[in-house]
Amino acid sequence: MAIVQPSSTPAPLDLRGVSIQDGYWSSFIGLVRNTVIPYQWEALNDRLPDTEPSHVMRNFRIAAGLEKGDFGGFFFQDTDLYKWLEAVGYSLAAAPDPDLERIADEAIDLLASAQQADGYLNTYFAVAQPGRRWTNLLDCHEMYTAGHLIEAAVAYYQGTGKTKLLDVAKRFADHIDSLFGSEPGKLRGYDGHQEIELALVKLYEVTGEPRYLNLASFLIDERGQQPHFFLAEWEQRGRVSAWSPGVVQKTPPALAYHQAHQPVREQEVAVGHAVRAVYMYTAMADLALHKGDAGLLEACRRLWNSMVRKQMYVNGSIGSTHHGEAFTFDYDLPNDTNYSETCASIGLIFFARRMLQLEIKGEYGDVMERALFNTVTAGMAGDGRSFFYVNPMEVWPAASEGNPGKHHVKSVRQGWYACACCPPNVSRLLSSLGQYVYTSSSDTLYTHLFIGSEANVTLAGRNVSVKLSSELPWKGNVSITIGAADGSGAFTLALRVPAWSKGSTFAVNGEAITPEIRDGYAYFSRDWQTGDVLSALYAMMPERIYAHPNVRANAGRVALQRGPLVYCLEEIDNGAPLANVMLPADADIEIAMRGDTVVLQADGCRQIESDADQLYRTSAPRLEKQRITAIPYTRWGNRGQGEMQVWIREKI
Amino acid sequence: MAIVQPSSTPAPLDLRGVSIQDGYWSSFIGLVRNTVIPYQWEALNDRLPDTEPSHVMRNFRIAAGLEKGDFGGFFFQDTDLYKWLEAVGYSLAAAPDPDLERIADEAIDLLASAQQADGYLNTYFAVAQPGRRWTNLLDCHEMYTAGHLIEAAVAYYQGTGKTKLLDVAKRFADHIDSLFGSEPGKLRGYDGHQEIELALVKLYEVTGEPRYLNLASFLIDERGQQPHFFLAEWEQRGRVSAWSPGVVQKTPPALAYHQAHQPVREQEVAVGHAVRAVYMYTAMADLALHKGDAGLLEACRRLWNSMVRKQMYVNGSIGSTHHGEAFTFDYDLPNDTNYSETCASIGLIFFARRMLQLEIKGEYGDVMERALFNTVTAGMAGDGRSFFYVNPMEVWPAASEGNPGKHHVKSVRQGWYACACCPPNVSRLLSSLGQYVYTSSSDTLYTHLFIGSEANVTLAGRNVSVKLSSELPWKGNVSITIGAADGSGAFTLALRVPAWSKGSTFAVNGEAITPEIRDGYAYFSRDWQTGDVLSALYAMMPERIYAHPNVRANAGRVALQRGPLVYCLEEIDNGAPLANVMLPADADIEIAMRGDTVVLQADGCRQIESDADQLYRTSAPRLEKQRITAIPYTRWGNRGQGEMQVWIREKI
Repeated sequence: MAIVQPSSTPAPLDLRGVSIQDGYWSSFIGLVRNTVIPYQWEALNDRLPDTEPSHVMRNFRIAAGLEKGDFGGFFFQDTDLYKWLEAVGYSLAAAPDPDLERIADEAIDLLASAQQADGYLNTYFAVAQPGRRWTNLLDCHEMYTAGHLIEAAVAYYQGTGKTKLLDVAKRFADHIDSLFGSEPGKLRGYDGHQEIELALVKLYEVTGEPRYLNLASFLIDERGQQPHFFLAEWEQRGRVSAWSPGVVQKTPPALAYHQAHQPVREQEVAVGHAVRAVYMYTAMADLALHKGDAGLLEACRRLWNSMVRKQMYVNGSIGSTHHGEAFTFDYDLPNDTNYSETCASIGLIFFARRMLQLEIKGEYGDVMERALFNTVTAGMAGDGRSFFYVNPMEVWPAASEGNPGKHHVKSVRQGWYACACCPPNVSRLLSSLGQYVYTSSSDTLYTHLFIGSEANVTLAGRNVSVKLSSELPWKGNVSITIGAADGSGAFTLALRVPAWSKGSTFAVNGEAITPEIRDGYAYFSRDWQTGDVLSALYAMMPERIYAHPNVRANAGRVALQRGPLVYCLEEIDNGAPLANVMLPADADIEIAMRGDTVVLQADGCRQIESDADQLYRTSAPRLEKQRITAIPYTRWGNRGQGEMQVWIREKI
Repeated sequence: MAIVQPSSTPAPLDLRGVSIQDGYWSSFIGLVRNTVIPYQWEALNDRLPDTEPSHVMRNFRIAAGLEKGDFGGFFFQDTDLYKWLEAVGYSLAAAPDPDLERIADEAIDLLASAQQADGYLNTYFAVAQPGRRWTNLLDCHEMYTAGHLIEAAVAYYQGTGKTKLLDVAKRFADHIDSLFGSEPGKLRGYDGHQEIELALVKLYEVTGEPRYLNLASFLIDERGQQPHFFLAEWEQRGRVSAWSPGVVQKTPPALAYHQAHQPVREQEVAVGHAVRAVYMYTAMADLALHKGDAGLLEACRRLWNSMVRKQMYVNGSIGSTHHGEAFTFDYDLPNDTNYSETCASIGLIFFARRMLQLEIKGEYGDVMERALFNTVTAGMAGDGRSFFYVNPMEVWPAASEGNPGKHHVKSVRQGWYACACCPPNVSRLLSSLGQYVYTSSSDTLYTHLFIGSEANVTLAGRNVSVKLSSELPWKGNVSITIGAADGSGAFTLALRVPAWSKGSTFAVNGEAITPEIRDGYAYFSRDWQTGDVLSALYAMMPERIYAHPNVRANAGRVALQRGPLVYCLEEIDNGAPLANVMLPADADIEIAMRGDTVVLQADGCRQIESDADQLYRTSAPRLEKQRITAIPYTRWGNRGQGEMQVWIREKI
């Protein structure tokens, strides 16, 4: 079954048409395949030592009538299995693994046996709240959970060609479609946590069934309309929340937290829970694409700008506060209390990829790269067994422990969270990375991320295979070799020119060439032949980054970046408190190798005070010279507990 | 009835023996007398427009059977009346006011008629929870409320000589004494919010009844003993909290929050709710004094040091987090999320005064002055009609509004809080200020605060009246004139030498004299005669203050202080963002007058960025010259809404 795409817009390549082989990224993908996926399977089955049980597989067995017991975990506990299956689907697309496929098939058999006769499938409602389906869309993540089932089904179908899970998903989607919509007798509701909208578009893309696309459209366009569904629903269930059963609430639910405060097309500012926001924006972009909807595209552009130009951290993360895991307001980017959930950066990457399908603009690729190379990989330990949910810009371990306003800022990665959304989200992104490297239209192959890979694609009617080589993130050398190209006729290779590059040179078969550069992409059109090599060199210098003057938290501070990587100081290299370290504005930033890692070093200084007993004194601190070493942010927290700081005080 | 004091230690002067007449402070006291006390009376009677009703007088009428209705407000709502009556008592001591006294007498008649036959008095339990007395000492502030009744009774008795309220208080104290204690059959409990302990010491001081002192001792020494009373009580009431009725709690109450985690004598670190802590330390110091208890004194010194040398803000405020209005840990002094409750600084002043009765050390007076001159007066608007509960070190109004972690940081003073503890606390402190200016022993008059006043005191058997004149906080000139001194014989005048003074000169009758200076006090012993004048000049230069290098929040920052006043920048003078303003390390700090206020000015600079559209850029900001103006912190927020910042970036 071919993917349904509007013919004129670039689309990701077929999942099995891209194979990642990259000096930097292959190890992450291997980690996902060989460690994270097996580890998560143990977690789903409550077999991890010293870890709270996840209850996931047990819930399905109970729902399927195979075991007696009570439901365990959150309303949306099922999604842990679905996200795992999605990652497995992607992983099997890249590398067959019969043992893994057998385990996954058995899990699918189990969940299929838990599906109810009408197509409904949700172990929380089946086991803990029978008869209460669809009574609390605000809190209970019912459609959200269905959305992850659908995403898993699409991935597993794409990865294996098997349809059993897809059939389960379609039956559930059909059931939902029969209940929700603008037609008389249907419920004009939508979910508190967006997710099903983008999943339904995927289901439309693999099945071609327009009902799924239209249901996604309905859910997006109904959201925020008056009278507000969430308020009416809240009144109807007696003003209670599923999060505090039995407590009659004095204040109605916060609509903006759910991006349901106004119709989505009218929203100007990114607000509320950051993951919900980016999942919704992703679906909006999907619909703008499939429906050719200029109004939605305009809304997407506005919301993109609101996030990326006013509310994004330099590591490509979003969500300035842990209160509601949410956006706050323009230029409010505190470093020591930010939330910056790994999942939110993943959602930002989803959105960016869709925007690149709608319009080719370097900013989308730049942000995708920033989030991927910095936050997403920081979210996972080097051994793939522990994870950050929150990605702080600054850590003082004593404060994480001793100041309740910073309890969410963990100074060491955690094994498996009670709400384990991030680790499986990292898995599913990294195992489908090929979807983000390229898109292609009928005659152009766009390269958005420089991640070594081989790809097969049809361009200008020719079957083309390309091999992308990249030395990122350590060096700016990139090349695309045409492995094979049948026939003849011009097609275009388009390469993103990263904003971090202060100079780029290009060559074809070793001969320098000056391409047209438009909106952050360089275009190379010719009758490409087998063996042709397009090479690019992106100048990769250590750069000082300054934040907008309205970002109070970064006044007088500088961040270091080289290529796509943002750097940070760690206590183990620079001593504590890091707050007393200063980088002179005129210091040379030097490059040094530490193992395979490029670190940055400079002659800096530190403020020292000798009269250390007094809390307040009138004697000024004195300056001492200190060598400063910065490591890539994405590798922080892998050498024991200590302070970390991205924004360094600048001595001017 | 004379105040009971251990004979060898200095004690505050009789309330009616001190009359404040000060160019700076008289206006505050007038404000309390003429505005705050009448305004609060209106609040107690629910007669303030646009303000939530306080329910206070109505609760008493309901409890007295004069009106039908439900209880309104917090468990401890009664204390609003008690703190008001305490302030009225002090105010009447200083200035008779028959109308005010009549109103207060009527309020006392009302509350007396609400007292139950066994002496119990608490409108919450009488009206809302009859039969549930003493079942939840942890949450319900029952003894705390009684403590404020006792403090009011003592003050009203001292101010008017009337005993009706004192009799009410004694009956309630007797009732409590009959129920609580270590004797068989009594409850070994204590209150979740300390307050009654210091009140019982006051009741002992005016009545001479040792049972009250012993009850205070019991409550202090029982606290934190095992088995933990609060845990047993929590189990007994079914693991519920009065704050979330009906919800069975999974985790037991936090003992450290209530300073009940270990016996008080063993406590090394100031932890938990800051107001509860300082109220408890005050009682501990009282008991150390009255019982000659060296172990308690040692604990007081340790806890003082823990607070003042590691957890106190430069404005003399405490409580680094709004989570539990609590201490966090050493050197954790964030500027933009601090709590620094006005009441906690008032409690710190209570504690400091007691420590000065135990030992004469300048640090106690310095901290008392710092808290009083900066935080307490900042807590009240210039018109006496609005108040800060939280005293931030840094305000960005948009963040107070838009970042939930800063919702507690108000950028404008509020009219009357639903939990109105701070305004009446300010009233009772300012109207009893005479108690903090001096203490005396048999032959020495100690002057701790330089607040113009006349005082009558017996020294070396002589009746002495002194007149203290002071130009603080604007100038460092202080003098004490002997108004009259009968008989003859040497006595000592002891003046605190403030830590902020970088040089002090003294003269007697115009002739320079070099006194003995010991532990921050200068001693002048002679056969003082009527008309003698002791004068002091404390050098008052603008000073840069630096924080301990472990205070991450103040790295690279400097605060300005002159005399007792800490300064701050306001947006109205310096433009926003204040974060971009820098004070060069070598800039002269100049003095200028603005009305009656000394402001500080310097040639500073501001970081400007022209390319203001980008969130992140590689171009460094440039510097522009800017004149910087700092105003006394205590006067901030009186010129409309805007940014404020105490710790200024230093350009080195």
